[in-house]
Amino acid sequence: MRTLAADIGGTQTRVGLVEDGHIRARRTFPTQGVKATIAVLKDLTPANCEAVGVAFAGSVDMPSGRVVKAPNLGVWEGLEVRATLQEALGLPVFVANDASCAALGERVAGAKARDFVYITWSTGIGGGIVCGGEVVWGARGMAGEIGHMVLRPEGPLCGCGKRGCLEAIASGSGMARRAERELGTHLDTKELVERALSGDASAKMIVDDACAALGQGLAILAELLEPEVFVLGGGVSQAWPQLGPRVRAATSRLARVLPEIVLTSLGDEIGLHGAAALPDHFPAVWRCS
Amino acid sequence: MRTLAADIGGTQTRVGLVEDGHIRARRTFPTQGVKATIAVLKDLTPANCEAVGVAFAGSVDMPSGRVVKAPNLGVWEGLEVRATLQEALGLPVFVANDASCAALGERVAGAKARDFVYITWSTGIGGGIVCGGEVVWGARGMAGEIGHMVLRPEGPLCGCGKRGCLEAIASGSGMARRAERELGTHLDTKELVERALSGDASAKMIVDDACAALGQGLAILAELLEPEVFVLGGGVSQAWPQLGPRVRAATSRLARVLPEIVLTSLGDEIGLHGAAALPDHFPAVWRCS
Repeated sequence: MRTLAADIGGTQTRVGLVEDGHIRARRTFPTQGVKATIAVLKDLTPANCEAVGVAFAGSVDMPSGRVVKAPNLGVWEGLEVRATLQEALGLPVFVANDASCAALGERVAGAKARDFVYITWSTGIGGGIVCGGEVVWGARGMAGEIGHMVLRPEGPLCGCGKRGCLEAIASGSGMARRAERELGTHLDTKELVERALSGDASAKMIVDDACAALGQGLAILAELLEPEVFVLGGGVSQAWPQLGPRVRAATSRLARVLPEIVLTSLGDEIGLHGAAALPDHFPAVWRCS
Repeated sequence: MRTLAADIGGTQTRVGLVEDGHIRARRTFPTQGVKATIAVLKDLTPANCEAVGVAFAGSVDMPSGRVVKAPNLGVWEGLEVRATLQEALGLPVFVANDASCAALGERVAGAKARDFVYITWSTGIGGGIVCGGEVVWGARGMAGEIGHMVLRPEGPLCGCGKRGCLEAIASGSGMARRAERELGTHLDTKELVERALSGDASAKMIVDDACAALGQGLAILAELLEPEVFVLGGGVSQAWPQLGPRVRAATSRLARVLPEIVLTSLGDEIGLHGAAALPDHFPAVWRCS
């Protein structure tokens, strides 16, 4: 199957032509509106392309293909992406959330486990759940919001409006906000981890607390889903050699069975692999709508 | 399909012959060892029975059909239930955890939603997860441990050995233990709720805290799985008219979308319905082993 895949992220859009799992004719450009994106897609689509898969950085109502929420991509919010692209390209189009697509990419081209959870540990925390070989999409495509499980109902305010979400405590931006409050200076995760390792007690407390919260989140996922493995991606996970032991310690204390935790091997192209597999893995009940 | 279904619980075993979703030739008896159970099953099995489905109150390694853990059914622990029954009955046998089977029963004979979570709110808290129409079994059949998600790492000790599990805070036995500690008397859930409603501040605090914890658990499930509905069963859920508003309030504060919450309509036979459907829904990858 020859599929046109697009991964529309908060800052960058990646497009590629995918044939039998191999990505060809890649193109990467700053994310734009739907018209400009269609122009690039049209340009890349060969005559024998059979379908289009789109991974989108926001909440997507999968049966209709409409973008419900896109905190970082406001101009796309409310758009009927599926219908618009289908009309412009004359091909069947399938649209889903990018983190769930990343999990699908991991399923078809990465870890390939049948039961796993993919977690992006980055500016925010997102993810996708795979059970019995298939992505858990939820009732309308909005499952997998790992970063928004509330661990501490009285905890720090989250970008989503709730308090104590995993993302508010353990994400890169969550740690940076706390560092700014408690250390009075802006530090990215790398700087914060360096400070913690060099003996700064306040920095250590912020990092340890973030790792404990992520560990608790993984423990909850382990009890609920019994995955074979957790697959981590995203910028903050690059500090895994330093942070991993702390996360593991928390998880093994809070879950009766500790699945393996590995880093993704797919790098930045995980979303493209997932978008390419979307036409094959799109739930049958939503195809006709 | 004519299936012999058995629901082997901590105190009672229910057996029935199920044809096209209708339960016939029911029998209920105090749970016994495997030999006595086989005798009853043999007695009930008609000549044209095609398969046997067993829901078991413990952790079951589904690929092998072995009971891994059975806190309330010690004599079954470690038994190769699938192999033993297959040999005795000369029929294909399928074994799974009873709470996951209850979710399957709800899928085929109850709420019938494609995406939902079934929760037993009883002496303990258990459950089963259904996504895209299929039960989430996990890597080896041990998913769905809703009661053992740790909400408060420094919270009360749980029967599983961890601290702050949902079950330790919000189950019938968890509430009773706290009442004994703080009120100095043994109260079942009904009595405790009555005390709380009649203005006893300590009883009210225990009940409110249990409802807040269950609400937080449901909120986590809502963010992770986007179910259409939560289905509740079990003894404590009979106090839903009093407890429901408190649980709902917590969930709606901690989840961005609040799925419907309903009580199961299947009563005590939910497990039998699930056991009967198990032969049809047993994952293909585990059939040959």
